[in-house]
Amino acid sequence: MGVNSVEGKAARSDFGLRSDGTGIARLVLGKEGMELVALFARRGERAGMDLGLAIGLGKVLGIPIEGDLESLIEQSRPQVAIQATCSRLDDAMGELSVLLGHGVPVISIAEEMAYPASSSVERAKKLHRLAQDHGVALVGTGINPGFILDLLVITLSGVCSDIHSITARRVNDLSPYGPSVLKSQGVGLTQEAFYSGLEEGSVVGHFGFGESLNMIADALGWELDRVEEQREPIITRVRRETPFITLEPGRVAGCFHQAIAYRQGEPVITLIHPQQIHPALEGIETGDRIEIDGTPSIRLEGSPEIPGGVATCALAVNMIPRILNASPGLHTMADLPPPAALLGDVREMINIRGSSHG
Amino acid sequence: MGVNSVEGKAARSDFGLRSDGTGIARLVLGKEGMELVALFARRGERAGMDLGLAIGLGKVLGIPIEGDLESLIEQSRPQVAIQATCSRLDDAMGELSVLLGHGVPVISIAEEMAYPASSSVERAKKLHRLAQDHGVALVGTGINPGFILDLLVITLSGVCSDIHSITARRVNDLSPYGPSVLKSQGVGLTQEAFYSGLEEGSVVGHFGFGESLNMIADALGWELDRVEEQREPIITRVRRETPFITLEPGRVAGCFHQAIAYRQGEPVITLIHPQQIHPALEGIETGDRIEIDGTPSIRLEGSPEIPGGVATCALAVNMIPRILNASPGLHTMADLPPPAALLGDVREMINIRGSSHG
Repeated sequence: MGVNSVEGKAARSDFGLRSDGTGIARLVLGKEGMELVALFARRGERAGMDLGLAIGLGKVLGIPIEGDLESLIEQSRPQVAIQATCSRLDDAMGELSVLLGHGVPVISIAEEMAYPASSSVERAKKLHRLAQDHGVALVGTGINPGFILDLLVITLSGVCSDIHSITARRVNDLSPYGPSVLKSQGVGLTQEAFYSGLEEGSVVGHFGFGESLNMIADALGWELDRVEEQREPIITRVRRETPFITLEPGRVAGCFHQAIAYRQGEPVITLIHPQQIHPALEGIETGDRIEIDGTPSIRLEGSPEIPGGVATCALAVNMIPRILNASPGLHTMADLPPPAALLGDVREMINIRGSSHG
Repeated sequence: MGVNSVEGKAARSDFGLRSDGTGIARLVLGKEGMELVALFARRGERAGMDLGLAIGLGKVLGIPIEGDLESLIEQSRPQVAIQATCSRLDDAMGELSVLLGHGVPVISIAEEMAYPASSSVERAKKLHRLAQDHGVALVGTGINPGFILDLLVITLSGVCSDIHSITARRVNDLSPYGPSVLKSQGVGLTQEAFYSGLEEGSVVGHFGFGESLNMIADALGWELDRVEEQREPIITRVRRETPFITLEPGRVAGCFHQAIAYRQGEPVITLIHPQQIHPALEGIETGDRIEIDGTPSIRLEGSPEIPGGVATCALAVNMIPRILNASPGLHTMADLPPPAALLGDVREMINIRGSSHG
């Protein structure tokens, strides 16, 4: 099978010194039964460069990076594409339309693609129709949104007969991330600059609460009244340093961000996601935690947090058999079979839907 | 919609003073958009009894318990059935064949139904063909097997690009369970009687390791060489007492049971499930824990354990929209969308597969 990884520059994609697209390409190259047939880059300056050199393998693979998506599809005829070029739905629509329009199923790691109806019901409908018209499936995935604060919450809710409220918390460490992620969390700013950044939109905090809240509510059959979000600067009391930034005490080390969804006037889902560099320097343990107050009540947690960058890349690749087996149309992680580590030959996992025991 | 809960006597079903079938019936009665149209009992002496009295509601519901499954189906025309009558596949086949043969989709909580090919590939194929021939879907579920030591492990593996080994452990408390569960774990026996019980087959330990191991291996694309199981008595050093049994020090309080699956000569999946009454009396904390040694490594845990009886009932009911939306044939929990607490109107969740954004 052929895989077309659509790779490029994105706010989320500069973890460590590699982008998500690079990480995904490396994983695809190592999977049995998969062939990486092409790589698209938005940035013109990378077009023509060999993939092997571009992703740091130190050798030529004979796969040039393409700058024109349509001609790439016509030449390479990929069986599936992974989109890792952007975060926003409006930014993703162009590439998605070209891919779906050519009958290529797509897995996207754009945050808004985790639950597109959250940012635009109209665009979600358009994508659904386009995918159906061309007989292919489309899904958005990623560690968050797409997994920890939504899919895992939903899956755990499956053992409950009733739920009063849900609280999920992800405390992570931004230290491996590069400048664009740090900027989006206000890292390095003064407290005043943080608040003006929030107003201007340069400081955004976590991107994905709307998607996660709507995915959970939809899965449970809850109608939400409204969502309240809160963003506050995390001010460091100690010096904190990463390869990308050095903070003196008093500066912003990250953004505490939480969202609370209300139903029938009561807070029913609280998602908490403080993001900062080196939380351990002030004794803060990173981790993921899900608590459901219901029948039965459930609490599951892990420390440290599941690392975001590598997990998002793995999820994108692991969803390949799922999207190839899915019915045509737009899906979410909650309406497809759960992801699983893809450790065998992917060709043996395709077209087995409903017949794994046949 | 109509729901037919097939209820009866089963080794696993005597938690507290209610059976799983009773618990399921009570949940179904409380769900929006669902109607409990009939209840089948294997035990002849319950036939004709009113459901409301049989499940302890203290009032007559006007739904008699039926002793003849075929005539029940013809009269009540259920849209889905939940089977909670037994643990073994050979014991389940008769009712499953009747239900599927009449075009009724089935959710079964029989342990071997969690992954039927584990105990009999032939029976699994037969069930798959029967379900396909009648255009309906069939799945086995339950807390364990069916969720904690398999579905949740698989879902978490979805964030991994590689896995060296998996260890999952469920430490539970058998105190709420009745005589037949206690007997199957050897509770109350001497150490010698425990070992003879193992040989005779009256002491079985956990029932479901084969199902869980095969479900995980299948989802990941691993071929297993062999499985090694170990069962040991848990000898109490203190007096332990439940409504059903009193133990003096030196007696068996439960069964330590683990299963290790090997691949290419290496242990790759270890499932550990010690079951005993009142573990807290010897300072043992109950809980569920999943550890994946891979890229990335993951550890998630919760204490106390997710309670088995109520969770199994909830899973069975929560899977109703999933099985109604599934393609015809035999499924496992790993090839259907994840369960979710069913808190809205079930009628709004049916036939939306692939069109939730349409």
